Amino acid sequence: MNILALDTSAKSVSVCLCRDEFLVAQSYQNSGLTHSQTLMPLCHDLLDRCGVPLREVDLIACAAGPGSFTGLRIGLAAAKGLGWATEKPCCGVSTLEAMAWQMAHRRGEILCAMDARRGQVYNARFFSDGEHLERLCPDRAISLEELFSELGEKTEQVLVGDGAELCYNDGRRRGARQELAPPHLRFQTAWGVARAALEMARAGRCTDAAGLRAQYIRLSQAERERLARQGRPV
Amino acid sequence: MNILALDTSAKSVSVCLCRDEFLVAQSYQNSGLTHSQTLMPLCHDLLDRCGVPLREVDLIACAAGPGSFTGLRIGLAAAKGLGWATEKPCCGVSTLEAMAWQMAHRRGEILCAMDARRGQVYNARFFSDGEHLERLCPDRAISLEELFSELGEKTEQVLVGDGAELCYNDGRRRGARQELAPPHLRFQTAWGVARAALEMARAGRCTDAAGLRAQYIRLSQAERERLARQGRPV
Repeated sequence: MNILALDTSAKSVSVCLCRDEFLVAQSYQNSGLTHSQTLMPLCHDLLDRCGVPLREVDLIACAAGPGSFTGLRIGLAAAKGLGWATEKPCCGVSTLEAMAWQMAHRRGEILCAMDARRGQVYNARFFSDGEHLERLCPDRAISLEELFSELGEKTEQVLVGDGAELCYNDGRRRGARQELAPPHLRFQTAWGVARAALEMARAGRCTDAAGLRAQYIRLSQAERERLARQGRPV
Repeated sequence: MNILALDTSAKSVSVCLCRDEFLVAQSYQNSGLTHSQTLMPLCHDLLDRCGVPLREVDLIACAAGPGSFTGLRIGLAAAKGLGWATEKPCCGVSTLEAMAWQMAHRRGEILCAMDARRGQVYNARFFSDGEHLERLCPDRAISLEELFSELGEKTEQVLVGDGAELCYNDGRRRGARQELAPPHLRFQTAWGVARAALEMARAGRCTDAAGLRAQYIRLSQAERERLARQGRPV
């Protein structure tokens, strides 16, 4: 199965083509340019270079969140456009699950953390047997206080994501024995998105383009402010 | 320091731009097309996408071997062309050292092995303290018999390279406790080439374009056959 995967959930952007587990090509960029400038040329050039026309792609995968609100919208809009035009199946992938795949070669618990500001991280926990991931909790926004209270004495996770260092430093003060994933494996990539999407496809969990939805976990700042102005609960 | 790094030592090709340790962009491709078709467009598009003109690159790095004879020549010819035209410093990097960097985040010994056919592997051994690599032997062609005889009881290496599985299977029969690096970290990439080149630059070991030389370790088949025809030692 040819999978075209996009990740625009953070500052970096990446695009890859996988044949099942096999990585055919990947382009990664973290140069400060906006995703709206970089994403479509990256997709186009990558397929072109590989000599794989879009009609030979079997699945379009995209990081659906959590992550940068604008970044996610750009990625999902692109994936929707590609999926709608070609009538291909699509997968919206948890950004946290995508980044967990980066460390899934190591047996043990993987704790994914993205900095959600306001004293929270976007978090999910996975257990890897060295090949497969088992999800231990849903994607959520959680304070470090609550997270460490949930972990209790079990603090031997490997940490991934842009909130990994935040979590690591807080954990050290609490006597946790967590470990930071190395820098070149710490962050989400299109490869992780493709890998997570492959599992979803195998489990029959694809959608069509219209079924792709952002999973922001929390409301955007604009929405929170609007609700607050209306005196409604945030 | 902006480093443009090329790897064409195997079937895959990759190109990256690093700012010291920081990976700005990388393009990787393993689609069956020849390096002579893919390499220069990859370089050109990557710099173009990042908005970094070639004149702002400070160092041109290239995997110099061991590896595919034709692949290395294509990569080195491209690097020489770029280096000569711009008068930039260049680094020819050991392919084995470049792949060792993929696992340098893990403390312990890294054994690099590329399938050299004829019962041998191209091999080097490194020790990582989790951040830096210490070379334990020069790049060489060696039989698995000799290699395991040298290792003796010390067989707790992590294995990288396209000869890793060969070495792993042979080692299992001998009771070795080696471990295969996970598939997404097992093979050389331009990132590893850039990382190794950064260390060389810091140690003042750059050359000019003319100083870039392939390190084949062994003679090519054509050269061996020529010497054999002449009755000279191979």
